[in-house]
Amino acid sequence: MTDRNIRVEPFERRAVNDQEIEIVERKGIGHPDSICDGIAEHVSQALAQTYLDRVGTVLHFNTDETQLVAGEAAPAFGGGEVVDPIYLLIVGRATKHYDGQTIPTEAIALRAAREYLAETIPELTFGEDIVVDVKLGEGSGDLQSVFGEDDVSVPMANDTSYGVGHAPLSETEEIVREAERRLNGPYSADHPELGTDVKIMGKREGDEIDVTVAAAMIDEHIQDMDAYRDAVEDVRAFVADVAAEHTDRTVRVHVNTADDYDAGSIYLTVTGTSAEQGDDGSVGRGNRANGLITPNRSMSMEATSGKNPVNHIGKIYNLLSTQIAQATVAEVDGVRDLRVRLLSQIGRPIDHPHVADVHVVTEDGVSIEAVEDEVTAIVDRELGAVTDLTRRVIEGELTTF
Amino acid sequence: MTDRNIRVEPFERRAVNDQEIEIVERKGIGHPDSICDGIAEHVSQALAQTYLDRVGTVLHFNTDETQLVAGEAAPAFGGGEVVDPIYLLIVGRATKHYDGQTIPTEAIALRAAREYLAETIPELTFGEDIVVDVKLGEGSGDLQSVFGEDDVSVPMANDTSYGVGHAPLSETEEIVREAERRLNGPYSADHPELGTDVKIMGKREGDEIDVTVAAAMIDEHIQDMDAYRDAVEDVRAFVADVAAEHTDRTVRVHVNTADDYDAGSIYLTVTGTSAEQGDDGSVGRGNRANGLITPNRSMSMEATSGKNPVNHIGKIYNLLSTQIAQATVAEVDGVRDLRVRLLSQIGRPIDHPHVADVHVVTEDGVSIEAVEDEVTAIVDRELGAVTDLTRRVIEGELTTF
Amino acid sequence: MTDRNIRVEPFERRAVNDQEIEIVERKGIGHPDSICDGIAEHVSQALAQTYLDRVGTVLHFNTDETQLVAGEAAPAFGGGEVVDPIYLLIVGRATKHYDGQTIPTEAIALRAAREYLAETIPELTFGEDIVVDVKLGEGSGDLQSVFGEDDVSVPMANDTSYGVGHAPLSETEEIVREAERRLNGPYSADHPELGTDVKIMGKREGDEIDVTVAAAMIDEHIQDMDAYRDAVEDVRAFVADVAAEHTDRTVRVHVNTADDYDAGSIYLTVTGTSAEQGDDGSVGRGNRANGLITPNRSMSMEATSGKNPVNHIGKIYNLLSTQIAQATVAEVDGVRDLRVRLLSQIGRPIDHPHVADVHVVTEDGVSIEAVEDEVTAIVDRELGAVTDLTRRVIEGELTTF
Amino acid sequence: MTDRNIRVEPFERRAVNDQEIEIVERKGIGHPDSICDGIAEHVSQALAQTYLDRVGTVLHFNTDETQLVAGEAAPAFGGGEVVDPIYLLIVGRATKHYDGQTIPTEAIALRAAREYLAETIPELTFGEDIVVDVKLGEGSGDLQSVFGEDDVSVPMANDTSYGVGHAPLSETEEIVREAERRLNGPYSADHPELGTDVKIMGKREGDEIDVTVAAAMIDEHIQDMDAYRDAVEDVRAFVADVAAEHTDRTVRVHVNTADDYDAGSIYLTVTGTSAEQGDDGSVGRGNRANGLITPNRSMSMEATSGKNPVNHIGKIYNLLSTQIAQATVAEVDGVRDLRVRLLSQIGRPIDHPHVADVHVVTEDGVSIEAVEDEVTAIVDRELGAVTDLTRRVIEGELTTF
Repeated sequence: MTDRNIRVEPFERRAVNDQEIEIVERKGIGHPDSICDGIAEHVSQALAQTYLDRVGTVLHFNTDETQLVAGEAAPAFGGGEVVDPIYLLIVGRATKHYDGQTIPTEAIALRAAREYLAETIPELTFGEDIVVDVKLGEGSGDLQSVFGEDDVSVPMANDTSYGVGHAPLSETEEIVREAERRLNGPYSADHPELGTDVKIMGKREGDEIDVTVAAAMIDEHIQDMDAYRDAVEDVRAFVADVAAEHTDRTVRVHVNTADDYDAGSIYLTVTGTSAEQGDDGSVGRGNRANGLITPNRSMSMEATSGKNPVNHIGKIYNLLSTQIAQATVAEVDGVRDLRVRLLSQIGRPIDHPHVADVHVVTEDGVSIEAVEDEVTAIVDRELGAVTDLTRRVIEGELTTF
Repeated sequence: MTDRNIRVEPFERRAVNDQEIEIVERKGIGHPDSICDGIAEHVSQALAQTYLDRVGTVLHFNTDETQLVAGEAAPAFGGGEVVDPIYLLIVGRATKHYDGQTIPTEAIALRAAREYLAETIPELTFGEDIVVDVKLGEGSGDLQSVFGEDDVSVPMANDTSYGVGHAPLSETEEIVREAERRLNGPYSADHPELGTDVKIMGKREGDEIDVTVAAAMIDEHIQDMDAYRDAVEDVRAFVADVAAEHTDRTVRVHVNTADDYDAGSIYLTVTGTSAEQGDDGSVGRGNRANGLITPNRSMSMEATSGKNPVNHIGKIYNLLSTQIAQATVAEVDGVRDLRVRLLSQIGRPIDHPHVADVHVVTEDGVSIEAVEDEVTAIVDRELGAVTDLTRRVIEGELTTF
Repeated sequence: MTDRNIRVEPFERRAVNDQEIEIVERKGIGHPDSICDGIAEHVSQALAQTYLDRVGTVLHFNTDETQLVAGEAAPAFGGGEVVDPIYLLIVGRATKHYDGQTIPTEAIALRAAREYLAETIPELTFGEDIVVDVKLGEGSGDLQSVFGEDDVSVPMANDTSYGVGHAPLSETEEIVREAERRLNGPYSADHPELGTDVKIMGKREGDEIDVTVAAAMIDEHIQDMDAYRDAVEDVRAFVADVAAEHTDRTVRVHVNTADDYDAGSIYLTVTGTSAEQGDDGSVGRGNRANGLITPNRSMSMEATSGKNPVNHIGKIYNLLSTQIAQATVAEVDGVRDLRVRLLSQIGRPIDHPHVADVHVVTEDGVSIEAVEDEVTAIVDRELGAVTDLTRRVIEGELTTF
Repeated sequence: MTDRNIRVEPFERRAVNDQEIEIVERKGIGHPDSICDGIAEHVSQALAQTYLDRVGTVLHFNTDETQLVAGEAAPAFGGGEVVDPIYLLIVGRATKHYDGQTIPTEAIALRAAREYLAETIPELTFGEDIVVDVKLGEGSGDLQSVFGEDDVSVPMANDTSYGVGHAPLSETEEIVREAERRLNGPYSADHPELGTDVKIMGKREGDEIDVTVAAAMIDEHIQDMDAYRDAVEDVRAFVADVAAEHTDRTVRVHVNTADDYDAGSIYLTVTGTSAEQGDDGSVGRGNRANGLITPNRSMSMEATSGKNPVNHIGKIYNLLSTQIAQATVAEVDGVRDLRVRLLSQIGRPIDHPHVADVHVVTEDGVSIEAVEDEVTAIVDRELGAVTDLTRRVIEGELTTF
């Protein structure tokens, strides 16, 4: 049916939802690590798009290393100030000279970073609260990709590596991911005091879920300690409501538990991110490609953000395996939990992994044989469409952290 | 017996050695990510030791962010040269002013980096092949620790986080770890042509193990293509021998598979590390605390290297859980594979984790009940001795990557 | 009459206007050295003003070192682009902690730089065409000045140094200075193709003046080679007209003499400054405090821009001696040319220089004795009002380059 | 006799030795500005020599911008320590790619800086007390010079600029220059407590000379305040002796006048240079090409150090005019003081300046006509040998600061 090496097997562990202890974490978009992920990925998109526009193909680049050095700030009720700027260094390589053209790779990277920051963390005044610098080495200059506009062929894997994806999210995972998204979405639109640096940890023991939120508050919108208390309580109540939508288990929500009101030690910031004071960050140290850190599940150490989306296995296979897992859950009845692993071999076409290894927890009463063919077909189909995924990454349709 | 919250449960998965597919990776000490890990950890040790020497207690610091920006090199048979230096930025915070004393934190960091590089990668001429810079913010100045010489009390967890450890290593893991250690140890002592940037990936499908080695060769000691071929073959044979010591399974060893002799494209370097040309690196992107990347096992995303070893859960619990797992395997009969997870709660003493969660695969015929008490006692004992672990980290006795 | 050590003597040389050979240079505001001067001075003003606003006195600071590293650009008729950004590093020291307050010195410096660039060279997209970074060490923390709002006393000289000033400008000097000012003023308002990096050298041999202009043209407003030729000719004609207003001598104007039309090598830029491609810059390497480089006259090597205007002799005495010279020429009949030198002694009040040494070329028939008392009185008066000068510097009323 | 445009004229001013007031300054080799000059010049020599060795000709480069950002130090009697390192950035452009070869320009620059520092300021531990970084843009790639080994032709001037030189030194100038040289030479060999950062200002009023020395003392060799006092007195006595060798005028020597023994405020350093604490530096801000700052004489603002010695007028003409002046004084009787100015025209051969303009103060009773021919012949001869000067610069035989 397919010449791809696809294996579908029963998963020997229980579904994560059924395990006794579960830990889930998400670093919000304003967390220092996420800032780095976001900038690296937008730089990557901007470079890929520019290459397509100018030379009709994506040239060699890799920008999966961004380092953020925290600043120093003096927050104060009603509005404090950043004292020393955050320093952010975009690192990587990109092809600057190709076929007589010069591609302004560093200028593109800086612009992408600036635009990304302006959109996601407008509280950070560019060039004042944050200094963005760039060191992009020259790419190899080889034509690394035939991913052109007209002529799409499948590139070769650049490395022996692998990706891993899961579906569906467990209840705890849903709560953690959804709470951060909505806090950083509709909630903050109505609550300007909430910063973007929202870090959420969910811990479930049996049927009891503890959700711990660290939420940076923005001093300009907090006039005094009472207002701060209110802001904290508002977040708590909101997250509790979100949680209730996703589970019937008992949920306790804790917000800014390290606060010490008597000592006046609270999580107050000028810009809504802890990067302003003491928290450094870098790419690939936070959320995995599905937006979560899930020690109950297999994870890849590869940074997904910032990598070249054409042939970098560390990026493509993490995104693709997640997509395969989600498609399987959506399309195949009887699948309760599954893990997809894709292992590349350097020099082979990326649509033909060395092995595609799927482990499935089926619903009670459903055998692995009952779903195997359907699952295999989906894996085969998605692998065949791998270049579509590249295109969607370049267009920013997929999140990487 | 203990007031610690210790749970011992059967592991629902098989031992990793018994699983069908296994993937293991180790980045050698000269890999760009490992260079960063090593420097971050040595900076951490140097700071901790200086604090102990000068103020009798370890003050607040965290240096778990080092960024390496690759250089540019022109290797050539018989000896080429570095063209643009590697740039390495040590990032973090450290307490510079305490009780009327000034601690020269940046000078300490630079010295630690220089000494570490001189010892591990002597081929890199400091200040010429590599520029090391430093940006250490001021630590909080709070007395973060009472980990003094005379008066040892147990610090509080600095975060809600967790660590995870395993034992024993699977055969594939043993092979990967041991091969790198011996290549970078006795082998390279006899074979100066082998660089420190040795990356090994092990893949096992059933009883067939493929070990893929990417080994940077040093041009000064390689006179021509024949010598290069010999050098590659020597590595292959050596790794095959190492593997044979650890398994009866079929092992195939592949070295520098991306080479293209006809095109003259081989893995030749000036300094023995790919950091000289195009490969960036940073802390926490490579090996986990046990020296391996093991997607078949639970992993923590926390960088272990560079963190303050007194109260930083992301460091202590990863090291401690590994140590507990190893001790258990060594001391308790009937344990075939186990995983230890330690989950902290911010503000609680670190020797009292929120939960210590141990999953055990027992030998055939051995029940979980048969080992539970022994395992619990070991966990209890090791938690009670957590400050010893801190001391050993400061003294450099434990590896973190 | 005065207890100040003021000496008025005849000048043994002729007035510069009467010398046989004269050389004069001015680097326009967009020249890389001038960019650094301008930013350093605006940073200085912003810091001084902030200190006055927040603590009522100017604290210790010195920001007279800014380094610009040129970028790389690809200009093209109709509009090219910057490829690699200009890198600009603001260097100095400033008091960040004072009396329980934290002054955000680095953020102030960055904002001042950004605002200055936006105003003077709007073609440079901040954070994209130019990256501005800052390294400000901590100032001494001593109360360096009693130059407060309410309580003005005269500070002590911080160094044994000197300043030198002249008046009036010679014809050649007038032409060079005025041509640049008007090119960068009304002319460029009507001629958007003219960049701010206008460098003018005037050379006079007897009654023949050669004015050589290097004028960066902005590619967006130059569609082709003909337009470029026209732009060059427009500048030439304009400068010739300016020159004719200031002299009856023969003037030849040369613009962009290094152009080679046949080779297509012309002075075309994206942003109007050579900093975009290959020309580095730093503070104090260009114009002296009177806006000119005048090898026919005594000059001080001290950088005036960026220094603390309260007690830094290298700044105050250069500005003050120039002001004294100008006042003398304006107020005293019979003075044809004069030079004022002020020599400080460390630790003495700055209104009492070690020696104020004035050399005067009088008009024919006027003796030095005839003007000595008037000149002495002016020197005495201006020294007595030295703190006014500081205030005017802080308010940006005086140019320093 | 010559087709060069050489003018010899009487100097309308008196010899500097005869003027009433004279100011002279020299920044010693360890002064932050001199450190930058020295490194820039050694980088320049190393690049030029490498180009000659590898491609047989000096390619385009210019490294006349080095920025030093001061560190922070904690000196203490008997030995203190550097707390924050000095940061030094080498800036410029150099041709990296030529005729298929890659020249490791940045590595060359870093090595030259390291070697220079090791030799001149061994107290600075490289990579610990000082971080040296480099940003060298790509040179134009044009063959900028035909200054090859075999085929020497005269290059064209790269700019319309000028140089100026004088001879002989006045007594005050001799004292200032000689005192620094001997303090930093034989004296410091016997007095390890004296740092290299010795700044000397000479002021002469009539027949009274004040020599003010600021001498950084090295704490390791100073055990207490008494030892410090002795060290200061030793310097004073030594400089007084040096001065007595060069003048019969009255000389007063002042050393470290800003010291306040009661307040414990003395000029004590760890490394012998104020760069360790608070004093930034850059190229071209200190000594002129003859090693002095002489406001009584014409000076060029051009930085001599670091520039390409083949065709950069700002370097060649300053060195050459000084050499011409010295040769004239040595060879021609009756010359008491002279100034040589060389004005280039862009695009003309550098041995044919636009004008060579010599002003001579003759001895009493000697007419300008009596020396004119001899002077002209020397100017002609030295201009004709300009490429020898380039060679001597590359070989490090000439000092530039």
